[in-house]
Amino acid sequence: MDTNDKSAQAGVPAGAHPAHHEPAGASNSVTVRLKIKDEPGMLGKVLTAIGEFRADVGAIDTQHEHEEGFTTRDITFNVGSVEQGEAVVGALRKMHGIEVVNVSDRTFRLHLGGKIKIIGKVPIETRDDLSMAYTPGVARVCKAIHADPAKGYTLTMKGNTIAIVTDGSRILSLGNIGPLAGLPVMEGKAMLFERFGGVYAVPICLSTQDPEEIIKVVKAIAPGFGGVNLEDIASPGCWEIERRLKAELDIPIFHDDQHGTAVVVLAATINAAKIVKKQLRNLKVVASGVGAAGMACCKLLMAAGVRNLVGFNIGGAVHQGRTDLNAEERWLAENSNPRGFRGTLKEALNGADMFLGLSVGNLLKPEDLAVMKRDALVFALANPVPEVDPVGALQYARIVATGGSEFPNQINNALVFPGIFRGALDCRARNITEEMKMEAARALAAVIPTRALRDDYIIPSIFNPEVHKAVAEAVCRVAQGKSHCRPGRKSK
Amino acid sequence: MDTNDKSAQAGVPAGAHPAHHEPAGASNSVTVRLKIKDEPGMLGKVLTAIGEFRADVGAIDTQHEHEEGFTTRDITFNVGSVEQGEAVVGALRKMHGIEVVNVSDRTFRLHLGGKIKIIGKVPIETRDDLSMAYTPGVARVCKAIHADPAKGYTLTMKGNTIAIVTDGSRILSLGNIGPLAGLPVMEGKAMLFERFGGVYAVPICLSTQDPEEIIKVVKAIAPGFGGVNLEDIASPGCWEIERRLKAELDIPIFHDDQHGTAVVVLAATINAAKIVKKQLRNLKVVASGVGAAGMACCKLLMAAGVRNLVGFNIGGAVHQGRTDLNAEERWLAENSNPRGFRGTLKEALNGADMFLGLSVGNLLKPEDLAVMKRDALVFALANPVPEVDPVGALQYARIVATGGSEFPNQINNALVFPGIFRGALDCRARNITEEMKMEAARALAAVIPTRALRDDYIIPSIFNPEVHKAVAEAVCRVAQGKSHCRPGRKSK
Repeated sequence: MDTNDKSAQAGVPAGAHPAHHEPAGASNSVTVRLKIKDEPGMLGKVLTAIGEFRADVGAIDTQHEHEEGFTTRDITFNVGSVEQGEAVVGALRKMHGIEVVNVSDRTFRLHLGGKIKIIGKVPIETRDDLSMAYTPGVARVCKAIHADPAKGYTLTMKGNTIAIVTDGSRILSLGNIGPLAGLPVMEGKAMLFERFGGVYAVPICLSTQDPEEIIKVVKAIAPGFGGVNLEDIASPGCWEIERRLKAELDIPIFHDDQHGTAVVVLAATINAAKIVKKQLRNLKVVASGVGAAGMACCKLLMAAGVRNLVGFNIGGAVHQGRTDLNAEERWLAENSNPRGFRGTLKEALNGADMFLGLSVGNLLKPEDLAVMKRDALVFALANPVPEVDPVGALQYARIVATGGSEFPNQINNALVFPGIFRGALDCRARNITEEMKMEAARALAAVIPTRALRDDYIIPSIFNPEVHKAVAEAVCRVAQGKSHCRPGRKSK
Repeated sequence: MDTNDKSAQAGVPAGAHPAHHEPAGASNSVTVRLKIKDEPGMLGKVLTAIGEFRADVGAIDTQHEHEEGFTTRDITFNVGSVEQGEAVVGALRKMHGIEVVNVSDRTFRLHLGGKIKIIGKVPIETRDDLSMAYTPGVARVCKAIHADPAKGYTLTMKGNTIAIVTDGSRILSLGNIGPLAGLPVMEGKAMLFERFGGVYAVPICLSTQDPEEIIKVVKAIAPGFGGVNLEDIASPGCWEIERRLKAELDIPIFHDDQHGTAVVVLAATINAAKIVKKQLRNLKVVASGVGAAGMACCKLLMAAGVRNLVGFNIGGAVHQGRTDLNAEERWLAENSNPRGFRGTLKEALNGADMFLGLSVGNLLKPEDLAVMKRDALVFALANPVPEVDPVGALQYARIVATGGSEFPNQINNALVFPGIFRGALDCRARNITEEMKMEAARALAAVIPTRALRDDYIIPSIFNPEVHKAVAEAVCRVAQGKSHCRPGRKSK
């Protein structure tokens, strides 16, 4: 059995290019509890069976409880995909003398009981604690805020807490799986907001996917939050939701799938262009996918100077002759594709400097990139399977980036969203402007000194604390320069 | 200057009974920074001035930074009300040779930056951590929940997290001060949920006070929560909101102002009746205030056996002859007041066994209670000023309880709400039933062994961990007995 075939069956449409192979990793780490008959060589047979699937065995723990004639062991192994793990377990189930008692995996264990907790900042151990944090003391704080609502920013969670709002309509690459199934992503995001930005974030998963309803609900819950991060909401609904909320609320609204991606893409483009000594205004960019993320990337790249950009959606090149475009795509048709290109994606690559993919996996073969210009940039960001195999792409392109962590140059929104909201909350910005995103991208790019840039190091690590600080400071700088913010946060 | 007069001016209508005197306490703890002229006896004058207002000086800290001819000191003192604190500061401002540089208080300091935090349960320090808590690992968890939504309870925050929803229409005793000004109460409540019940709670402060809108919003945000605690929503809106949400959502809905109060009142009544050796079915109860809390108390007392109850609203005794009653009050008129009493509150007290006040402060003079039966029970629960001065009431009643902590027998919802939701989440109850509330009250009452009951010890301390355990177990017991719950929480 070929594990590549298994993962291809699961994730890639029939007839597509062979699956992108994911190496074994912690995100697919399985522990099986096996009752193994006490016969010579049984454990060896088990380990051989697991090894045949290219799984890495990490640990073998023998259970203390003993049943006559059997040994019970917990065997932990890493695999490259859930299908690969299932294949291993399936093979084990078929083995004579083996009973699979339980299958668990580290990722699922980590999710048990949820990933975030909501706790008090101060202990409540005495009457005095209670009477200050709750009644009767709290009443005076309420009255102070009622008299001066600006105090809500300093005396409540509002000053440091945002809502992460999703309708579950486009969760990761999984599509419209609904609000509850999307919650683990929102919780993970809340963890990252706190870990990297010191921002508290509350997942809010909505049971409606109607834009008008979503707008109403977000406006209704807004008083207690200092900002709203829209998350995994499908286009075109996301555009209207964001536009309206920005207009109708006075706290920052940020659709991370759009703008987080765009800021990181621009930062990576700035650094990649530096390496290959090209100017943004001279780049010919081919963008595959002009949904929420792709459209925002196109807009921000164009705002940063890119003039020659051709976008593609499922109906082909976006040009002014098409009648099947939504409002955003019409805007793109009118403001990009200066030569009115109407050919195929592969034709468009001819002479292109940059390919930007935010569409679907395995769209291109590496050799399709051969027609691009010298020192080509290929950002194949579809997740989990990129538009083109990144290793193969390196034969034709100079700089390759993906959305995954198993390859250098990961375009990861988490480089941006914690700092964006850290900055916006610190200066009490009323909104996140185009200029803030632009400056955030420049600041993110500048975290890597020019001398340190490499073809495979165009974007810094999320674990580099300078990243989040630089992004936050850029947002604050713009906000304060343009008076986009409320009075300072020091007053009580 | 008389501090009683000051507090009366602030909290009590003109012509009312003299104000209930609050002793100095931590909930009103003030720190003033004073620049004091270096003259002999100046500090003594300051302390004397503070002492004249009956404030308790707690600490004197001298600042290191020194200005020629002046000493800067931080002086911390406890007072009984904000007005008393302001009076002290006002007097200090008028003193010659004193400059009041800053006034802060411990309660406000504790609220700076909000009182709750939202953090991850596991560290994110490595790539492996990221790939399990967030992408790509999280996608498998999402898919598992999408395939089997019941897993949402075990693999997300939903299983242990509730929303605390308010519209700000009736925050504590402060009235309709709006959602943001009410947020400190919701945060305090979230702290108590976690501290006493291990339940995570998210404050949701709504910008609408329209019941239909509130119902819609709560339904929209429900997917990510395991329950909803409605909080400080005024009647009559709260009744419709609760009724509809209970009918239209499959997670427990609990309006704490109603039912938390009712459960504690019933528990206290059970224990008080034990002490005075009376049966609930023989009690004559006079209830002043039949709003959210009062109505729920009347209903639960009646469900527990009370037959002779007369309720009063602002228009007088609730009886079947009145035409100005809302739906709930009509129900009460039809189901209580068996003799059709139409007189005044004071007349109703004649021969009554129990007075239950959930209305406004200083409604009665202690001597008004003289006409009650022997061993009278007086629960004067208006906050912060009770319906009758509790110390004075003890001259006429045997057992007196209030809503405050400065007197024994505090009727405190926090005895109940953490355990109610702990129990409901543990057994995945679909709703909070009347029987659960009844059993919770009995369990709460039983935390004090009969032999330990005293006139001034009818209800246990919130810091007694048995309290929350007993309430949670009672809820679970009923839920499981009646199959009100989903399948057990052990499965993955």
